Amino acid sequence: MNHAPEKIEHFGQDEALVLDSGVKLGPFSMAYETYGELNNDKSNVVLVCHALTGDQYAASTHPITGKPGWWSRMVGPGRPVDTERFFVICPNVIGSCLGSTGPASINPETGEPYGICFPVITINDMVKAQAQLLERLGIDDLFCVIGGSMGGMLVLQWAASYPEKVFAAAPIATAARHSSQNIAFHEVGRQAIMADPEWCGGRYAQEGRNPKKGLAVARMAAHITYLSENALHRKFGRNLQDRDAVTFGFDADFQVESYLRYQGVSFVDRFDANSYLYVTRAMDYFDLAQAHGGALAAAFKGTKTRFCVVSFTSDWLFPTEESREIVQALNANAANVSFVEIETDKGHDSFLLDEPEMIDAMDGFFRSAARARGLEDQGKGSHG
Amino acid sequence: MNHAPEKIEHFGQDEALVLDSGVKLGPFSMAYETYGELNNDKSNVVLVCHALTGDQYAASTHPITGKPGWWSRMVGPGRPVDTERFFVICPNVIGSCLGSTGPASINPETGEPYGICFPVITINDMVKAQAQLLERLGIDDLFCVIGGSMGGMLVLQWAASYPEKVFAAAPIATAARHSSQNIAFHEVGRQAIMADPEWCGGRYAQEGRNPKKGLAVARMAAHITYLSENALHRKFGRNLQDRDAVTFGFDADFQVESYLRYQGVSFVDRFDANSYLYVTRAMDYFDLAQAHGGALAAAFKGTKTRFCVVSFTSDWLFPTEESREIVQALNANAANVSFVEIETDKGHDSFLLDEPEMIDAMDGFFRSAARARGLEDQGKGSHG
Repeated sequence: MNHAPEKIEHFGQDEALVLDSGVKLGPFSMAYETYGELNNDKSNVVLVCHALTGDQYAASTHPITGKPGWWSRMVGPGRPVDTERFFVICPNVIGSCLGSTGPASINPETGEPYGICFPVITINDMVKAQAQLLERLGIDDLFCVIGGSMGGMLVLQWAASYPEKVFAAAPIATAARHSSQNIAFHEVGRQAIMADPEWCGGRYAQEGRNPKKGLAVARMAAHITYLSENALHRKFGRNLQDRDAVTFGFDADFQVESYLRYQGVSFVDRFDANSYLYVTRAMDYFDLAQAHGGALAAAFKGTKTRFCVVSFTSDWLFPTEESREIVQALNANAANVSFVEIETDKGHDSFLLDEPEMIDAMDGFFRSAARARGLEDQGKGSHG
Repeated sequence: MNHAPEKIEHFGQDEALVLDSGVKLGPFSMAYETYGELNNDKSNVVLVCHALTGDQYAASTHPITGKPGWWSRMVGPGRPVDTERFFVICPNVIGSCLGSTGPASINPETGEPYGICFPVITINDMVKAQAQLLERLGIDDLFCVIGGSMGGMLVLQWAASYPEKVFAAAPIATAARHSSQNIAFHEVGRQAIMADPEWCGGRYAQEGRNPKKGLAVARMAAHITYLSENALHRKFGRNLQDRDAVTFGFDADFQVESYLRYQGVSFVDRFDANSYLYVTRAMDYFDLAQAHGGALAAAFKGTKTRFCVVSFTSDWLFPTEESREIVQALNANAANVSFVEIETDKGHDSFLLDEPEMIDAMDGFFRSAARARGLEDQGKGSHG
């Protein structure tokens, strides 16, 4: 899983991150990608926040899989996050494994990978690390912060922590707290990893092993939750995989089995098992209301940020109701907020897929926010 | 997991079961429990069909867990399936592990446990084995067949295979075919088991090992699907387990994690991992329409059976829509069918829980069917 990220910033012990747990994390590194050009007054910065197993390669080729950027539909020339107008930064979150410091990184105190000696991090910690990166890059404030799923949690945290630095914010397919059911699914994934003897109590790197099977099972379970029942039915139904009849065995008779197995085995090549533990934990711990005395509205007190909240009708991982709670908290602050619920049967993963209505909504939001910000519209026309 | 079931019937090689796969399974055994007394004309027999990991102990103490019968609310004196009126038989399905022949049984050809050399069985095979058991017991026909979830699939198969033998049928929280999403969840469970090195290619019994961790993960993933998001939220929310604050670690900080872990570890003491593979596979393969030329209505052609189909509003594993398809197929045959959709937030497991509306509906159904059958009402009054 080694690769050299294109862009990386290192922070010394004197710049250590004080985590919510109280632990000081330092030295640490932040890997990131950028797209587009920073304008003269640095007013055109868009921060893109990735999801659980996402990475900084939002609009560029992934160095391991060779696949196009995970959000090429949203970020690029003529796209809603138009790289001909905006300067886009997409950092890899701390705790992850694509260059930013995480459990696979070397612990300077021991000279060995942290493993599960890495401190537990939170969404707030991820945001603080991003803020430190931006400071290093000389960026004082953000035109917009945008992200889906866990990325949406980071967007909300940014808006709550640094309201004066966030002109616009687009939390997509997300929630202000992780639900009981979602914690349960994460716990299944973690137990699958930790049940794998190759996990070695988290020391698999030192032992030259790798809990690939456990991680694949975790991914398979999670992947089901990213789709809707209808999407699975439409895509696979009970269709058989390259055969005319069931085999009366445990091969992948059904296409849906074959698909899931592929999701599992292909995932382990690009993601670290311990990172999976840490990043899921960060989501579980996220509860923005609780961090503000129990009232979500208090998290956005007096906010001047322009929000566009997006949900998808068939997303059962982050149902519309949870987006509505965000909107209500913003309304309670008389915030500038629009709310788009998109009719689709593609489930939670819709934010990554070809959803023209989402693209149109984001395009409109970025254009209008750019006008409000006084960013010159270069009349680049529509996306696509 | 060894125990001596109270009641068991053995079938010799000459009475072998010809499975849907073409394999002949024999000798084989059927363990079962009975409750109540058979009447003189043998017209009061109720067959209770258990769910995936259920067993024959519907209304009596489980020999391993010591817990009361899993359907004591439904079966017993004064209950809808009134053991003072009806003679109740509840067999353990073949492929399972509570006394009926399954992968943990000794293969007479090798003298070793079958393991994954056990033939793959289907819902239809389970029903044929039950029919053979009933024949042995001298029972020609059934007053009623009732069951939930996989048990409901057996009910539908009974009604389709032996319409003349089934006077009444109550399929609860079930479907006429297993959905793509449900196959996907089963596949995750199977992969979790097979990923456990203790599984030993299915030969763990011979090797003196046991894939407990894999089976526990499978159970945890499945268990989430048995509940509704609302039920999890109401029951656990984001409540912490015996602590005032999160621990910034991977202990079970949240009650829902602790609950799930308990569901996993307690399950492995009462269930065999290979049986889990086989019984999930039987459900995956179930597609009653496909077995009747593609039209579900054809499965119930000319049926005289009285049906009561029950679904639960918050059951996302077997949503109401799938019960409605059964009802439509029955309506197409002008069958005697009533359909009850019960409003509850308890999810799929509702059929096992205290749902007064379900109990009342079943009570009414059994009373009315008994009258139609000419079974004397002994005026035992209401249940409870």
